[in-house]
Amino acid sequence: MTTHYLEDFAVGQIFRAGPVRIGEIEIKRFANTFDPQPFHLDDDEAKSSFFRGLAASGWHTAAITMRLLLESDLRPAGGIIGAGFDELRWPRPVRPDDELRIEAEVREVIPSRSKPEQGMIKLQTTTLNQNDEPVQVSVGNLVVLRKIAAR
Amino acid sequence: MTTHYLEDFAVGQIFRAGPVRIGEIEIKRFANTFDPQPFHLDDDEAKSSFFRGLAASGWHTAAITMRLLLESDLRPAGGIIGAGFDELRWPRPVRPDDELRIEAEVREVIPSRSKPEQGMIKLQTTTLNQNDEPVQVSVGNLVVLRKIAAR
Repeated sequence: MTTHYLEDFAVGQIFRAGPVRIGEIEIKRFANTFDPQPFHLDDDEAKSSFFRGLAASGWHTAAITMRLLLESDLRPAGGIIGAGFDELRWPRPVRPDDELRIEAEVREVIPSRSKPEQGMIKLQTTTLNQNDEPVQVSVGNLVVLRKIAAR
Repeated sequence: MTTHYLEDFAVGQIFRAGPVRIGEIEIKRFANTFDPQPFHLDDDEAKSSFFRGLAASGWHTAAITMRLLLESDLRPAGGIIGAGFDELRWPRPVRPDDELRIEAEVREVIPSRSKPEQGMIKLQTTTLNQNDEPVQVSVGNLVVLRKIAAR
C-alpha cells in the first residue's frame, strides 16, 4: 500500500480495479439528485428514449470510475488530483446490474518545468462492463508529487 | 418551456442557470460515496493538502453543473445527451458554501451526415462561483434531434 511519486510512474503501466455492480436503485437515486431526465429515472419512458431503456447518467459512471481509481494500486503521493481531461466519452450506456471495472494506463509522465516538487501523469482510463465493452473512456492529467517533495 | 431542435440553436447563444449553494455536508456526503480522499472529507487534513482546505470533488462540481444545465433554457428535444467532452477542467477548488452558476455558450451546430434526424451542438459550459471565478470549464458535444424527427 505504498504511494507512488512521479519517479515511480512509467509509460505503459496499467492499473486495474473492480468489478463493482451498479444497481437500478442507485442509478435512479443519483439521477434524481443530479441528472433528473426520464431515461435515467423511469423504465417505461426510457424505452422510447435515445437510450432504448434505463441508463445510468454519464456523471454517475464517471463518479464510480473515480472510486475505482482510488481502489486501484495507482496511489499517487498526495492523492488523485485531476487537473483536467483532454477527453471524456461514453461509447455505450451503463444498464442496471452492469458490473464495471477499470483499466488505467499511464500514457505520459511529465515533470513540471516551473514547480520542481511536482509533475503530471497523463492517464487513459477505460471503464468496461461485464462483456468487456467500454462504457467510458477518459484521458486525464493528474498532478503527482516528486520525491523531492517528500524530503 | 418549449424544447429546442437542432434548427433552433445558433452559435453564440448563451444559456444560464443558478446560483445554487453547495454545503459542507453535501460535499462530504458525495466524497464519501465516490471520492473518499482526505481533502474532500476532513477539514484538518485538507489544510495540509494540495487544496489548502476542504474542497468539493471535481465530479461533484460536474454533477451539479449537469443539474444546472437541466434547469437552464437549453432544453434540447430528446433531453441533454452528452456524447462526450473535448475538454473538462477545474481551474480552482469549490469550497463549502460557494454559490455556483453556469454560463453555457453554443460554439458549433453540426447536422449529422449519416443520420438526417439528428445532429450535435458543441457547448462550452463555464461554472462560476460567487466571485465570478471559473471553477469548471467544459466543452461538450450534445446529441440533438432535428425537426424532421418530430414529424
